[in-house]
Amino acid sequence: VPIEIPAVVIDRLPVYARALTALESRGRDVVSSQELGEVLGVTPAQIRKDLSYFGRFGKQGRGYNVQRLAHELRQILGLDRQWSMILIGVGHLGQAILTYDGFHPQGFIIIDAFDSNPALVGKVVGGVTVHHIESLRSYLAQRPVDIGIVAVPPEAAASIIDVLVDGGIRAILNYAPTSVSVPDTVEVKNIDPVLALQSMTFYLKTAKQQAL
Amino acid sequence: VPIEIPAVVIDRLPVYARALTALESRGRDVVSSQELGEVLGVTPAQIRKDLSYFGRFGKQGRGYNVQRLAHELRQILGLDRQWSMILIGVGHLGQAILTYDGFHPQGFIIIDAFDSNPALVGKVVGGVTVHHIESLRSYLAQRPVDIGIVAVPPEAAASIIDVLVDGGIRAILNYAPTSVSVPDTVEVKNIDPVLALQSMTFYLKTAKQQAL
Repeated sequence: VPIEIPAVVIDRLPVYARALTALESRGRDVVSSQELGEVLGVTPAQIRKDLSYFGRFGKQGRGYNVQRLAHELRQILGLDRQWSMILIGVGHLGQAILTYDGFHPQGFIIIDAFDSNPALVGKVVGGVTVHHIESLRSYLAQRPVDIGIVAVPPEAAASIIDVLVDGGIRAILNYAPTSVSVPDTVEVKNIDPVLALQSMTFYLKTAKQQAL
Repeated sequence: VPIEIPAVVIDRLPVYARALTALESRGRDVVSSQELGEVLGVTPAQIRKDLSYFGRFGKQGRGYNVQRLAHELRQILGLDRQWSMILIGVGHLGQAILTYDGFHPQGFIIIDAFDSNPALVGKVVGGVTVHHIESLRSYLAQRPVDIGIVAVPPEAAASIIDVLVDGGIRAILNYAPTSVSVPDTVEVKNIDPVLALQSMTFYLKTAKQQAL
C-alpha cells in the first residue's frame, strides 16, 4: 500500500514541474533546491520534503538533475499524455474557456461542450461543438471522459456535477462559485477568484496601516 | 516590527473566514478546531497554528467563539470594507468577469474597464463602462484604485502590469497564463486553471493504475 501523499504536496508538484521544464528548455543541467526555492517562493526544505515522497532525486550538495526530475514529475503527474475534457455551460465564461489556448499545449483537450440554451446548441465555439445539456447523460454512457469543466450558474452546479459523477467522470474543474459535495473517488478543484482577492486585501490593508 | 506571516497562512484565512461566516449565519455559537478541520480538509493542529499568528482566539477544550473569530478574521483580512477594482481586457473572459455576480456581495467593486478594441470602447458591460487602454495611465494618475484584474492575452500582460504598478496599484489578479514579475510591494495572484488540472491528473493516473 503506498503512503498517503498530502493534497497540498500534490498541488505544488505542477508548479515544480513547470519551473523545471522552463529550466530544461533553457539548457540547464543541474539546479539546487535553494535556487528552485528562490524562483518559486518556497523554502528549500519544503522542496526536498515534497520530493522525498517520490524517492531520491538529488544528491546532497550536488543539486537536482533538471532533465531527470522534470521527466519524473511529468510521469508522476500524468503530464506526458492527453486528457479528454467536456465543458458544461457556454456563457461568457464558457466561451472564454473554449477559446483559451493554454489547455491544448498541456495535453488537456476539450472534446465537446454542453448548454441548455437552444440558440447555442449546434454552434461550434473554439473548434468545439455545443450539444444540448439533455444529451449529457447519454453522451457519458457512450464514451469515457477524463475531466468535466463546470461553468454554469451556481444554482445549476450541483445537479450538473451529479450527472458528471454518475457518468463516470472523476475529476471536475469547477468555476461555479459554490461548494460542491462529491464522493471520495472524485477530485474537484474550484477556480475561486474571490478567495484570491481576499488573501491580497490582507496585504493592502497592512500596507495602508503602515503608511498612516 | 510584526512577525512575518507565511503567505500560505494568509491564503488559508479567507477559507476559514468563509466557513465561519457560514456557521455564524446558521446561528452556531461555538466550533472546535476539530470540526472546522473536518469541514475544510485541514488538520485541527494546522488551524490552531495558523490562528496563533494573530493572537489567542480559543480556549483549550472550549472551541472558538464563532461570531468573534469570524469578525476578527474579516478585520484581519480587510473583508469588512469595499475595494475598488479595474478590469483590463474585455474579451470573452473579461465579459464573464464583468457579469460575474460573486465579486460585489464580497465588497469587490469593478468601477471601470479598459480594452484596446475600438468597437468595445464606450460600451457598458455588466454596468461597467469600457475605456480605451490608452487612457489607463492618465486614469490611474487621477484616482487611486485598489486592485487591477488582468484578462488580456499573455503577450500583452507584462506591459499592462507595468502600467498598473506604475499607476500605484498594489494588488493584481492575473488571469493571463504567464508568470509576471513585480516589485516586492505588489501582490499578484494568478488564476491558473492548468495548474489545477495538472494536480488532478495525479489522482486520475493513480486510480487508473490501481484498476489495471
